[in-house]
Amino acid sequence: MNRSRITASVLIIGNEILSGRTQDLNLQYIAQFLIQRGVVVTAAHIIPDDEDVIVDYINQSRIATNYVLTSGGIGPTHDDVTAACVAKAFGVPLVTNPTIAARITDRTVPPDILDRRMRMARVPKGAKLIENLTGGPHGFYIENVYVMAGIPRVLQNMLPTIEFKGGNRVHSCSLEVDLGESTIAAVLENSQKRFKEVEIGSYPFKRNDRYGTTVVFRSTNQALILNALDEVREWMHSQGFHTNQAQCDWLEQPS
Amino acid sequence: MNRSRITASVLIIGNEILSGRTQDLNLQYIAQFLIQRGVVVTAAHIIPDDEDVIVDYINQSRIATNYVLTSGGIGPTHDDVTAACVAKAFGVPLVTNPTIAARITDRTVPPDILDRRMRMARVPKGAKLIENLTGGPHGFYIENVYVMAGIPRVLQNMLPTIEFKGGNRVHSCSLEVDLGESTIAAVLENSQKRFKEVEIGSYPFKRNDRYGTTVVFRSTNQALILNALDEVREWMHSQGFHTNQAQCDWLEQPS
Repeated sequence: MNRSRITASVLIIGNEILSGRTQDLNLQYIAQFLIQRGVVVTAAHIIPDDEDVIVDYINQSRIATNYVLTSGGIGPTHDDVTAACVAKAFGVPLVTNPTIAARITDRTVPPDILDRRMRMARVPKGAKLIENLTGGPHGFYIENVYVMAGIPRVLQNMLPTIEFKGGNRVHSCSLEVDLGESTIAAVLENSQKRFKEVEIGSYPFKRNDRYGTTVVFRSTNQALILNALDEVREWMHSQGFHTNQAQCDWLEQPS
Repeated sequence: MNRSRITASVLIIGNEILSGRTQDLNLQYIAQFLIQRGVVVTAAHIIPDDEDVIVDYINQSRIATNYVLTSGGIGPTHDDVTAACVAKAFGVPLVTNPTIAARITDRTVPPDILDRRMRMARVPKGAKLIENLTGGPHGFYIENVYVMAGIPRVLQNMLPTIEFKGGNRVHSCSLEVDLGESTIAAVLENSQKRFKEVEIGSYPFKRNDRYGTTVVFRSTNQALILNALDEVREWMHSQGFHTNQAQCDWLEQPS
């Protein structure tokens, strides 16, 4: 199973996330996007606008996983240091990209402001561009490192333009039950032992004063997911417990 | 300034965050809580329910920062491995804590369910308890590693019971302007050079079709924050730009 596993690291760059000023929304968007393309996010790091730290994480991550996606730090101000850090990590200079520069100079602005905006045209030498469907300055990628904006609206206008070569897609089914985790822990543990290729997760919830657990089955193998799901569901029915209809990401009406 | 800097790492443990199934809400809560107590979060890692990975991050983080806070993986099911990982990281056995056990046995449940729930009473030998104001099983800490639940409601009923020995508190003021980042980038860069002890951040926003930038000044030194703020604000006024009233976290009505 692991031979076809394609992985990604996500680096969320920005003091504003670590100070609690801003709620990160990019990791969830990126993870959901990648999983549909057969790429599994195996780690995410939220790191400050600190050059040494950013360079370190880029270099660690680009070896650890097939893809590295970064968000944040590519604007026009002094605290936007991501492009310079990626250049440093790859040991190449920053150069002005003519395509981004043309997009920036297309808008008429005073010279001193233009000068600042042109900072956003600087990319590591050898980088290729990531389209930005908002019409603003592009993101870029070099080797397996993809550099995008931190503003969710802009990131969401960059990510869909990238082509990822994914592995086998991880599918999932989820089953909601009106039972506490402890009640179903034993059957889940047994099923997990029998279905080693299915990752079985258990997530308690409270909704409108109703407590329950969502059981999630994840695997690249849909048949195994359904087998594990059936086993767990049959145990529940044999105990007289009700289960809601399972939701699978590839079935409208699961059997 | 750095001698009085007390730092924390946050480890968000759970496949459900990395798969995009669940939006993490704990980092922001923890970061805002700690900053008010003079503790600065310098890194956050979102990692899978994988024992080797968790042990590694606990051991790296407890050396790298003064505090380590974890969220997730302390429930009763097979995928709840955090307590075992912390024990392994510290090289101590898991033991049943009588205080947590008493709280669990206080509720009448069938023996097989009780058996599963008792998993939540296991803590690394030598660990002390973190109170859980919901009345459920406790969290725990050992040395500088604080282990809490992943469910935000439960985490928020554990964290406030911990006493942190913080350093000088980092304060902040923020100033909203109806200007793009590029327009103010030069003055911010100059102020950042002059006020090295103030971290000046710039965050563009779009609200009701209005574009603008929030400038945030952060420092342990309130007077320096106000000096930097004044410098930036005066430049804006000299250019004929309007600024909204600054919001400072220690002043009701900033000057």
